[in-house]
Amino acid sequence: MQNKVKKLVLLGSTGSIGRQTLDIVRVFKDKLQVTGLACGNNTELFIQQVKEFKPQLACCAADLQLPAGITRVSMQEMASQADADVVIVATTGKVGLQPTMSALLEGKTVAIANKEILVMAGDLLKQLATRHGGAILPIDSEHSAIWQCLQGEDSDVSRLLLTASGGPFIGWPVKKLRRVTASQALNHPTWKMGKKVTVDSATLFNKGLEVIEAHWLFDLPYEKIEVIIHRQSIIHSMVEFKDGSIKAQLSIPDMHLPIQYAIFYPQRMVNPNIRPIDFSRMHNLTFEPVNYVDYPCLKLALEAIKLGDTYPAVLCAADETAVNLFLKNSIAFTEIATIIEKTLGMHSPVSNPGIEDILLSDGWACDMALKAARKEI
Amino acid sequence: MQNKVKKLVLLGSTGSIGRQTLDIVRVFKDKLQVTGLACGNNTELFIQQVKEFKPQLACCAADLQLPAGITRVSMQEMASQADADVVIVATTGKVGLQPTMSALLEGKTVAIANKEILVMAGDLLKQLATRHGGAILPIDSEHSAIWQCLQGEDSDVSRLLLTASGGPFIGWPVKKLRRVTASQALNHPTWKMGKKVTVDSATLFNKGLEVIEAHWLFDLPYEKIEVIIHRQSIIHSMVEFKDGSIKAQLSIPDMHLPIQYAIFYPQRMVNPNIRPIDFSRMHNLTFEPVNYVDYPCLKLALEAIKLGDTYPAVLCAADETAVNLFLKNSIAFTEIATIIEKTLGMHSPVSNPGIEDILLSDGWACDMALKAARKEI
Repeated sequence: MQNKVKKLVLLGSTGSIGRQTLDIVRVFKDKLQVTGLACGNNTELFIQQVKEFKPQLACCAADLQLPAGITRVSMQEMASQADADVVIVATTGKVGLQPTMSALLEGKTVAIANKEILVMAGDLLKQLATRHGGAILPIDSEHSAIWQCLQGEDSDVSRLLLTASGGPFIGWPVKKLRRVTASQALNHPTWKMGKKVTVDSATLFNKGLEVIEAHWLFDLPYEKIEVIIHRQSIIHSMVEFKDGSIKAQLSIPDMHLPIQYAIFYPQRMVNPNIRPIDFSRMHNLTFEPVNYVDYPCLKLALEAIKLGDTYPAVLCAADETAVNLFLKNSIAFTEIATIIEKTLGMHSPVSNPGIEDILLSDGWACDMALKAARKEI
Repeated sequence: MQNKVKKLVLLGSTGSIGRQTLDIVRVFKDKLQVTGLACGNNTELFIQQVKEFKPQLACCAADLQLPAGITRVSMQEMASQADADVVIVATTGKVGLQPTMSALLEGKTVAIANKEILVMAGDLLKQLATRHGGAILPIDSEHSAIWQCLQGEDSDVSRLLLTASGGPFIGWPVKKLRRVTASQALNHPTWKMGKKVTVDSATLFNKGLEVIEAHWLFDLPYEKIEVIIHRQSIIHSMVEFKDGSIKAQLSIPDMHLPIQYAIFYPQRMVNPNIRPIDFSRMHNLTFEPVNYVDYPCLKLALEAIKLGDTYPAVLCAADETAVNLFLKNSIAFTEIATIIEKTLGMHSPVSNPGIEDILLSDGWACDMALKAARKEI
């Protein structure tokens, strides 16, 4: 069993998590096999990846010539049809949602790095996993930490403590935040990540998404999930059990670790490229409460969570639209929150939404966010 | 199964761990029953305890009149004969060793707070537990932390990180240490404990014992066990797995938690008297390497570990003798290390020692340590 080669399908292979997943495949060549690769528009890197990993199936949004013997499919076809022990969803935004649903419909194990899809449709995805015998595993460092801390514990959890670095602008006054450029926002103090998630980490919007993710992944009410500022990103999150005992998971900030944990779960693997913590250099771990006034995007995310229904989908779409505009220098950093707030304020929610309602709300919110950016609402 | 009343035998009921164990029995009245109580010389408190908890068996080193219906036995008889789901060994020094062996010979589960017995005879105790189907559970906060972190993990451990507060004299120059009084040494910055263990925490001798304990409890070579100074005593210890991921266990310093964890294992229980960590007040967790020059007792303990054989027994006896002399103001704080060093230096070890060799070495070391204190060697 332990020596069986694990087959991976990787959606979003050219992004940050996708590339790091393939680093792991390189380290564990004899234990892992890539059977499907999917990307968006980075065709140059994708062709290299396809040549190196020789998947049976490939999917690319852009036009390109695939090497002989590799079948081109849609992302949904890949997620449902490929021979896979684990489908890794490393896409950004909503693009991974329907492929994830297809994989879960086939009873597959899905490892999710793509926060938004759990936020938009956590309830639906959970139902699919339960109904068809599949599983949803976390790749986010915070959720991986919680998952690790929960191993072997069947006692009640009293609190999840999600740690947040606070991003590069912690403590900055609004006046200064208004002039923040995309390149400043992309310079995260502790993590190297994709662009969207790096901006979301600067606004702490990210942490709002993670609260929702944690709610679905670990089946806990929102009241039991707290966010705490921990600037060093060494403790990736903590679980408090009902006796008051807390378990924390620590490591240097490196996504290779949670990715390989999800791939090889429950086995841990020695990866020579992952550095251990050197406690002779690591002197101080700090904790601070979140100042919600400084992080309106987080506040809005937590409000949308409480409202439920189609609000989380609208939240994600408005943020995705606003962050894209910010990355193109079309809006100020502080306008991300304004756009999300306006969009949420205009929404008429649908109760117990199905996938169509979620996608309709998403489309509506993208339009509305663009209007808000143009000051039309 | 969960509702079955657990029967406890408590050796060392009037000491710090003993009293805290009885606090837990008071909280979980309907789940716990004390079937045996044993103490040394604190007869006044013992009589109160016997009246309150009504054990079937009682043992007291001093002379006293027991209430009717309670049978007086020796500590060894109690450990082997009493009807017990868990025998809690909360004695100090070597007095708990033979009762622990008797309990393990009967295949009982023994929860050990008494470090010295594992240090003196870890190998023997482990063999007894394995051979007779018993179990040894830790109560020390550090080992409880490690035990908690190991739950649900079957991967290789690469390091245990034992945390040490550093005691009340961290950074003090030797000149100042020479004038330390017993009452200063008994004023530990983070933990309320018994006298011997508090002095051992000030010299960090304690941490040496804990390294040996960890070696036996978790079956790990000494090279994989590190000591790290963590002044706040919030992280009680950590385990690093082979993938570089570390798990830590955190709680406010309160022995009730590890005691009840051992009693109810694997269940965690809500105890209203145990405060959770308030992260809005807990701002900073620090880590420092140990400066072994400042802690000669720790250095000597680690050397004795490497020598093995009867050296650990001699180490314990010399320390026990020296600490008693220090508590009586007969020697200076800094002489504790000198006495241990001299005693170890005079020892002719016995290979693969049996219990008689261990007890003989212990007796020899007590005499030798007294001679060293009187400057006769």
